[in-house]
Amino acid sequence: MGFMDHVRSCNRHQMEQFIPFRIDGTVVGCMRPAFARELRDWPEVFSVTHGQVDLAVPGTGLEERSSAVARVLRELLQRGVLNHLLGEQYGVTSRERPGCLLLMDRAAAPWFGIRAFGQHLNGYVMLDGECHMWIARRAADRMIFPSKLDHLVAGGLPHGVGLLENLQKECREEAAIDPELAARATPVGTVSYLAESAAGLKPDILYCYDLELPAEFRPHCTDGEVEEFYLWPVSRVLETVRDSQEFKQNCNLVIIDFLIRHGYIPPEHPEYHDLISGLHPALPY
Amino acid sequence: MGFMDHVRSCNRHQMEQFIPFRIDGTVVGCMRPAFARELRDWPEVFSVTHGQVDLAVPGTGLEERSSAVARVLRELLQRGVLNHLLGEQYGVTSRERPGCLLLMDRAAAPWFGIRAFGQHLNGYVMLDGECHMWIARRAADRMIFPSKLDHLVAGGLPHGVGLLENLQKECREEAAIDPELAARATPVGTVSYLAESAAGLKPDILYCYDLELPAEFRPHCTDGEVEEFYLWPVSRVLETVRDSQEFKQNCNLVIIDFLIRHGYIPPEHPEYHDLISGLHPALPY
Repeated sequence: MGFMDHVRSCNRHQMEQFIPFRIDGTVVGCMRPAFARELRDWPEVFSVTHGQVDLAVPGTGLEERSSAVARVLRELLQRGVLNHLLGEQYGVTSRERPGCLLLMDRAAAPWFGIRAFGQHLNGYVMLDGECHMWIARRAADRMIFPSKLDHLVAGGLPHGVGLLENLQKECREEAAIDPELAARATPVGTVSYLAESAAGLKPDILYCYDLELPAEFRPHCTDGEVEEFYLWPVSRVLETVRDSQEFKQNCNLVIIDFLIRHGYIPPEHPEYHDLISGLHPALPY
Repeated sequence: MGFMDHVRSCNRHQMEQFIPFRIDGTVVGCMRPAFARELRDWPEVFSVTHGQVDLAVPGTGLEERSSAVARVLRELLQRGVLNHLLGEQYGVTSRERPGCLLLMDRAAAPWFGIRAFGQHLNGYVMLDGECHMWIARRAADRMIFPSKLDHLVAGGLPHGVGLLENLQKECREEAAIDPELAARATPVGTVSYLAESAAGLKPDILYCYDLELPAEFRPHCTDGEVEEFYLWPVSRVLETVRDSQEFKQNCNLVIIDFLIRHGYIPPEHPEYHDLISGLHPALPY
């Protein structure tokens, strides 16, 4: 293992096995041809032609489009093509987060290969001049990544919620960080990757935050997502990321970015620039 | 103007107008065909064939190769193809900085399109909780970028000098920062770009550093490069970068990276992710 392996494993994909998904002529996602063939059964919603899929809902209203697609997703769930829906709406956008063209259940996002946005918070404490990082162990009953190590706070960004508002909500639910303290988090950039899953493609952008916490702070999880919290010296975090797959996959990238920005991965590292460009790829659409 | 314009102008290039330059079969640079035709006159040093140029020096010694190329450069200078040499040796590498395959005068680097490495230091002071940044005005008699705004400390990385050692040397010469204080600078990543100049291609990697300076610190230039220093509130630095071309071109990228990492360019910025991926492109060789 090594830092670069995490970058590579989050960016393993075969773009040529996907066909574009477009709204109003703009590519907003892409999907496997097998999934596109399923969508042929709703020609009033999806136009599947010439190796691409276009949203075919007449009119331009966000609500009209979104409810037409939601109906298809419910029927795909009944057919067993999708195995769950989450009831949380993601905004389908082209490029940056503003400019929503369609709302879609979060669980369907990878099937359509749409951009998903999330927030990850590096919560750290300085003890005798040494940086320590709060780490969460995910609960064993979680549907995704049970028992894996995770950020103190991390979550997806649903449509229509501001970045700070969502961060404050996640901070309260996942670690009992009060809104005032959460508002002191510094936004420090993004990490992006293009991963492939069984469902499809995940072109994700994670907004990253650093929050220095008081020494007496103790996290407390109120939504059942976390089993246990640890306060680790940054050297232990570095070794765990570098030498193992204990962390939920995309957390590794956000932590590597933290380690670089704070000088814990030094510029003498033989893959320094490759790591940095690997953490921030432009996404294909 | 806007932040993204600086990213674009540092990455304006037409790769298809260049042919690769290889050493031992590895692409380490690229050049204009017109420059390659000049090199045909030294077939014992350069093999110019099939739209590419290979180093043809027999043997594998770094010294032998480098002195053969240095002789060609001196003759190119006499012919007027090159207009100056700097007497500072850059290491020609593939990808990261270690692993030098050839030494070459810094002035010839863009003609051969080899990777060049530099260091830029963001020197800042916290006054009443507000970040202020030390900015330099380059002397009017400088050959490159006279009278432009510049970082407090910035310079190229010659071969065979360690990163910290070179940073300390530049800090002393350019701003009278003592080595002990310079060693407290935090390495915070890189910024990369692929620019085209009259000479050729510049695939550059800049190592970036943040250094919080004491309030009483006053810079002082000992090598004639700087005419004047200013201590500006970060808001003025932000506006100057965003709205003007007063800074030496590549400084804009390093400052935009600083503004993002410290939260002064917030994640709500409409081109936030495009800026970040634009500051950290993978280079083509």
